[in-house]
Amino acid sequence: MPPWKTKLHEVIYEADTPAGKIFDIALLVVILISVVLVMMESVSSLLVKYSWQFYVAEWIITAIFSIEYILRIIAINKPKRYIFSFYGIVDLLSTLPSYIGFIFGGANLLFAIRALRLLRVFRVLKVTRYIGESHKLISALKNSKAKILVFLFAVVIICVIAGTLMHLVEGSTGGFDNIPLSIYWCIVTLTTVGFGDIAPVTPLGRLIASIIMVTGYGIIAVPTGIVSAEYSKATKPISNTQVCPNCNEGRHQDDAQFCHKCGYPLNE
Amino acid sequence: MPPWKTKLHEVIYEADTPAGKIFDIALLVVILISVVLVMMESVSSLLVKYSWQFYVAEWIITAIFSIEYILRIIAINKPKRYIFSFYGIVDLLSTLPSYIGFIFGGANLLFAIRALRLLRVFRVLKVTRYIGESHKLISALKNSKAKILVFLFAVVIICVIAGTLMHLVEGSTGGFDNIPLSIYWCIVTLTTVGFGDIAPVTPLGRLIASIIMVTGYGIIAVPTGIVSAEYSKATKPISNTQVCPNCNEGRHQDDAQFCHKCGYPLNE
Amino acid sequence: MPPWKTKLHEVIYEADTPAGKIFDIALLVVILISVVLVMMESVSSLLVKYSWQFYVAEWIITAIFSIEYILRIIAINKPKRYIFSFYGIVDLLSTLPSYIGFIFGGANLLFAIRALRLLRVFRVLKVTRYIGESHKLISALKNSKAKILVFLFAVVIICVIAGTLMHLVEGSTGGFDNIPLSIYWCIVTLTTVGFGDIAPVTPLGRLIASIIMVTGYGIIAVPTGIVSAEYSKATKPISNTQVCPNCNEGRHQDDAQFCHKCGYPLNE
Amino acid sequence: MPPWKTKLHEVIYEADTPAGKIFDIALLVVILISVVLVMMESVSSLLVKYSWQFYVAEWIITAIFSIEYILRIIAINKPKRYIFSFYGIVDLLSTLPSYIGFIFGGANLLFAIRALRLLRVFRVLKVTRYIGESHKLISALKNSKAKILVFLFAVVIICVIAGTLMHLVEGSTGGFDNIPLSIYWCIVTLTTVGFGDIAPVTPLGRLIASIIMVTGYGIIAVPTGIVSAEYSKATKPISNTQVCPNCNEGRHQDDAQFCHKCGYPLNE
Repeated sequence: MPPWKTKLHEVIYEADTPAGKIFDIALLVVILISVVLVMMESVSSLLVKYSWQFYVAEWIITAIFSIEYILRIIAINKPKRYIFSFYGIVDLLSTLPSYIGFIFGGANLLFAIRALRLLRVFRVLKVTRYIGESHKLISALKNSKAKILVFLFAVVIICVIAGTLMHLVEGSTGGFDNIPLSIYWCIVTLTTVGFGDIAPVTPLGRLIASIIMVTGYGIIAVPTGIVSAEYSKATKPISNTQVCPNCNEGRHQDDAQFCHKCGYPLNE
Repeated sequence: MPPWKTKLHEVIYEADTPAGKIFDIALLVVILISVVLVMMESVSSLLVKYSWQFYVAEWIITAIFSIEYILRIIAINKPKRYIFSFYGIVDLLSTLPSYIGFIFGGANLLFAIRALRLLRVFRVLKVTRYIGESHKLISALKNSKAKILVFLFAVVIICVIAGTLMHLVEGSTGGFDNIPLSIYWCIVTLTTVGFGDIAPVTPLGRLIASIIMVTGYGIIAVPTGIVSAEYSKATKPISNTQVCPNCNEGRHQDDAQFCHKCGYPLNE
Repeated sequence: MPPWKTKLHEVIYEADTPAGKIFDIALLVVILISVVLVMMESVSSLLVKYSWQFYVAEWIITAIFSIEYILRIIAINKPKRYIFSFYGIVDLLSTLPSYIGFIFGGANLLFAIRALRLLRVFRVLKVTRYIGESHKLISALKNSKAKILVFLFAVVIICVIAGTLMHLVEGSTGGFDNIPLSIYWCIVTLTTVGFGDIAPVTPLGRLIASIIMVTGYGIIAVPTGIVSAEYSKATKPISNTQVCPNCNEGRHQDDAQFCHKCGYPLNE
Repeated sequence: MPPWKTKLHEVIYEADTPAGKIFDIALLVVILISVVLVMMESVSSLLVKYSWQFYVAEWIITAIFSIEYILRIIAINKPKRYIFSFYGIVDLLSTLPSYIGFIFGGANLLFAIRALRLLRVFRVLKVTRYIGESHKLISALKNSKAKILVFLFAVVIICVIAGTLMHLVEGSTGGFDNIPLSIYWCIVTLTTVGFGDIAPVTPLGRLIASIIMVTGYGIIAVPTGIVSAEYSKATKPISNTQVCPNCNEGRHQDDAQFCHKCGYPLNE
């Protein structure tokens, strides 16, 4: 690996050197600007007013991200590992839609093109590179995954049955026109969101709704309890692995200098 | 038990053999299709368009479930234990309504017939057969049951009193026409669902509503705390694997040097 | 205390004898009927239709509760302790409003009379006599009280400031006409109830609303965490108080028969 | 420090003497009155009716707070430390806006002046001086801060992506006019607030909404779990009171027989 490549790798992939920090912060700023621009572009009044400014800004940002992508490929020894990694795909998705958009014309309002252009919002995922502090959280979530899935599955079964019941009881008067719609309403209610665009109007429907709500209020405790318990376990202080050479006692405080059982000095 | 029956039992009730796995997956697919069909049938535009396709599909699914039900009875030594078990009843309910529906005609829109046809949605309960991983969850819930019931009971008493108060204060202006309706609104509010179809409009009513909401926000912690604590207890790791060589007792404290049951020294 | 009084006390205040159990269940049924009647009376269509039935039922229930109240006073040695206890006041409140209502006429719709009549709904509190299983819950809540009050206080301060801000930003366009109303909206939002009768319409108002919501979503964890931790503490298994007579070791499993440290038999 | 200054300091900054207690309670009452007045002034019907009463009350309260501010500066040895402390700034903000308001005239409805006048609501922060009992809470929150920020950050990323998706799928029919609005809706939904002013109407939009809601319902467990675990840790009881007679080390394991710091035997 030539020295310039090592240098480049340091700047782009690491944040220990001043140059590396500046690169990271500059990139973060560009990412945030680009996401805000995609959002603002979707506001039609702004799009009409600042049409060409958006166009120019888009060109500049796409150019920056393209250069970043190429530099990242150059700066690494095994480019394939980067290209097919999560961040490699996110980085590619940050530039590709713009190029396709430019080719097919920005004024084109076909759904596919619009969808493609909106894909640019996934640039926000580039930020995840800068989030640390989450190892314990992720491990707690991974440990809870199976149980939370079972829980969500139970929620779906409850919603299917309760939704069908509500469709039968309320019918079209309250807006429960068909079962999928009733199930949607059940999910809205059980998760305590409660939009209110659909709401029961018959006494029996309201009684069932009350039961669904109280159930939702009661079982929200389940995933919380699971994550809480798993997280508690994940953050239990790892007692060190010191073993007393004299009496073989294994549980010592982190800063113990003598065995608490026989008084023999511990060689750390 | 003749060998073909043993084989059949293996395929239908177990999932260890390839044939058993295929049977399970095929059945799962049929269940999901049948539930989706019941849902789609309730969408009137789809019912009009694909009327006879729904009819044929229903016939096929009912036939499959009927065969499954008969096979399950044949494959087991004590059919009664299956027939009167939870799954036996669910399996019967998956076929019976269709037959009754066919007899009385699908175009019949009487409430009883419609209700019967919608019963088919309970087929979703057949899926619960395939959910594992939930032993600890269920035991935690069982341990919390009594306390959660007390809690829900307290919620209902709060709602009855607060609902009466709101009816008195708001009257018909805000939609609090009678006490049952006001109680329904209180449940909607206390569980933080908040549809908004009924909402207080007088200053005093809004003050009481605020107190109800803050109460609901504060006491949602109670069931969560209960389940969380119970679940924590249910998943406490078994601390060590020492077994007494004399009396075979297996639960020993981490630093036990003698069996707490027979006093025999433990060799670690 | 004469034997008939002891007998009466047993029947009314205790539930160990068959007569006591029957008394309890009968009373519970009457309470539930009376609460349901108060509710139904508030539905104007039912009141018109079954006016005199309600009147008669009310007479009967009031008579039953009056007799119960008198019997409770007779059956106890120190009637004052009962009369001024929580249940004594609840029992009195269960009969008094009816008598006052009868005197001033049931057709009288003055607010004070109506309020008085609705007081009868407090009869539901008579049921709390039959709720057990809640000692740990109540002790956990008592331990958390001070902290939860501090938390609710913080919530109120947040709502006062955020409400004023929303009133300033949104003004009358979104319905934020004055500060008390804005604070009410903030409470509705922070507690994740979200009626939707008042909702921000300006971009800045929506931004602030988003911050309030995410804050509410984040801090709902605080009371839950408190109750959860306190409840955990309240249900920690009390390790027994056995101490080995030989080596003075104090931590033994509940069913330990020999000291796990020195093997000496424990005399339970 | 002259004796009158010591006396004044005791009365104003402490609550141990009767005079100090009276001062505290009097100030608390004035603060609450002043906040209620600011709120009432925002109700236009009250402002019209009691215009000059508000004016006079405002003068009196401002005078009281000004005197309090001056006394607090006089009574302390290093006034700068008070002036630039949190409470110093809050106390200044409690008087300054009124003076500026008086200068520019109360009838002036310019946004800046109105904003300034509403600043007076920050007087509510003066109350925080009187809240104790929150040390553990605050330490638990401080320990959870980093993790909760990561969590909220994840919530924002989910909302940006889901919001864009909803804008694409629903478009203007359901009110999802642009991406910022859609993101606002996502936050409203994910936090389970659910106003209902914007709600999906297409089947696909409702399906995505259901997924967002169930996600929100599932991940609300995460911050709760974090705070719960951190709070549990913060309140762990100190296990024993053994202190080494040789080196005075105080944290020993429950069954320690020798000091883990110096090896000296512990006499239990």
